[in-house]
Amino acid sequence: MSAKPLTNLEQLCIHTITTKPWAIEDAVKHFAASGVKGITVWRDALHNRDIKKTGEMIRNEGLNIVSLCRGGFFPAADKQKRNAAIDDNKKAIEEAEALGAPLIVLVCGADPAQSLEDSRTQIQEGIEEIVPVASAAGVKLAIEPLHPMYADTRSAINTLAQANDIAGKIDSPHVGVAVDVYHLWWDPHLKPEIERCGRNNHLFAFHICDWNTPTTDLLLDRGLMGDGCIPVNEIRGWVEATGFNGFYEVEIFSNKYWSMDQQDFLKKIISAYKEKS
Amino acid sequence: MSAKPLTNLEQLCIHTITTKPWAIEDAVKHFAASGVKGITVWRDALHNRDIKKTGEMIRNEGLNIVSLCRGGFFPAADKQKRNAAIDDNKKAIEEAEALGAPLIVLVCGADPAQSLEDSRTQIQEGIEEIVPVASAAGVKLAIEPLHPMYADTRSAINTLAQANDIAGKIDSPHVGVAVDVYHLWWDPHLKPEIERCGRNNHLFAFHICDWNTPTTDLLLDRGLMGDGCIPVNEIRGWVEATGFNGFYEVEIFSNKYWSMDQQDFLKKIISAYKEKS
Repeated sequence: MSAKPLTNLEQLCIHTITTKPWAIEDAVKHFAASGVKGITVWRDALHNRDIKKTGEMIRNEGLNIVSLCRGGFFPAADKQKRNAAIDDNKKAIEEAEALGAPLIVLVCGADPAQSLEDSRTQIQEGIEEIVPVASAAGVKLAIEPLHPMYADTRSAINTLAQANDIAGKIDSPHVGVAVDVYHLWWDPHLKPEIERCGRNNHLFAFHICDWNTPTTDLLLDRGLMGDGCIPVNEIRGWVEATGFNGFYEVEIFSNKYWSMDQQDFLKKIISAYKEKS
Repeated sequence: MSAKPLTNLEQLCIHTITTKPWAIEDAVKHFAASGVKGITVWRDALHNRDIKKTGEMIRNEGLNIVSLCRGGFFPAADKQKRNAAIDDNKKAIEEAEALGAPLIVLVCGADPAQSLEDSRTQIQEGIEEIVPVASAAGVKLAIEPLHPMYADTRSAINTLAQANDIAGKIDSPHVGVAVDVYHLWWDPHLKPEIERCGRNNHLFAFHICDWNTPTTDLLLDRGLMGDGCIPVNEIRGWVEATGFNGFYEVEIFSNKYWSMDQQDFLKKIISAYKEKS
């Protein structure tokens, strides 16, 4: 079953990291001029900026701020490091509030010096500790399950079932899940877990890109929709069937695309969004 | 819970690809001289050899032939390619019989030109087609679930649950599963699925190595036990608790270790086997 073609750009959001060579001011200008309606801001893009004014600049250009990327990285065998992670997440919440971002994406973290079970416990504890702060700031948190190839250092949450479980345990209207096709496309339980995520009102964000065949780098060789083997359109259909009507966020880390002229790349993103998503 | 230390080499098997720079004759000689008791033979190592005589040579040196690596790669959108894969698997069974290998490891395959569901269906159909041939030859088949980062082209079977399911559906005493820590360590259901695999008499093989942090290559950067973050000893404990008393097979693809003196590497393997497995 296919999802309906995307004939306009009303739900297109692009992450600042996708066009990393552009400063955020340039990205915003070019996105807006191309009809893109949403932007997810990576924290590094805010370096040396007045965050509140940057948020105003983005809104003045007509873009919606979809989320701030990223919080998380809670686990550490060392307690002091865990405390530092909590502090950093609280800082991210302040930044999201100043920017006017309604959501923070959590890359939950993992510490290879301890078991995945311990890391998962610390992830839950870490999120529970920041929920009151997020709630007071009116900022939601989205647990993003990461591909199992990142289980060593980036996330001990590697399936949508795990993310749904932990969101269910925390049971706060401020905690949900970000579904990224790159991390989850291989999972035989993806469709029922997307349905469950929607049913529980936990589907907070939807990220798209593609899996290159072959993939030459574990981190920096993501493809544009249509480049690879992920059934992006089919997965979008499952997401839409839950009632999700948020943004479709293009999040691509790619040495290849970053080395291109970014205006040409932006045209490619828009074509791929309309024709291959 | 830890598994008991491995104080001798009675269950140590090494894959020919682990010491790839050595011709099989050299590998056998060095393995035997070091007290290694088992060898898994990759088909490329048999190139231009009389397979039956190679089997005799291995046994004469006192080594057990644990398995032949590898059959599989069943799925293809193109029917002719699927037929060719069946033929190649039948050839692998002939080779295993000639060599005197009791088991073939199946890397099941995937075709990015079609859905994972279609690939999985074709995997089951392919195995079912070769089971009578394997059975007549007295050769068993082990479905090896591969890490999800290989779901594009190498295997649409990416969890032990999937491998257990398909072995259960095929329901032949000649079809079971190979558990490789590299592919499965991240899976939150690994322990119960190993228990289920054992309970169903499907646990045919156990492969060990480690996950380097960071991993620099998707294929050729496996670590030696103790190099990385996989709890090899703990997983071995789960495997042993099923009653498994076969070989612990060291299967490492590593540009780093292949560029070393292979006798030094063999010493490292034996130390890591005793101290870190």
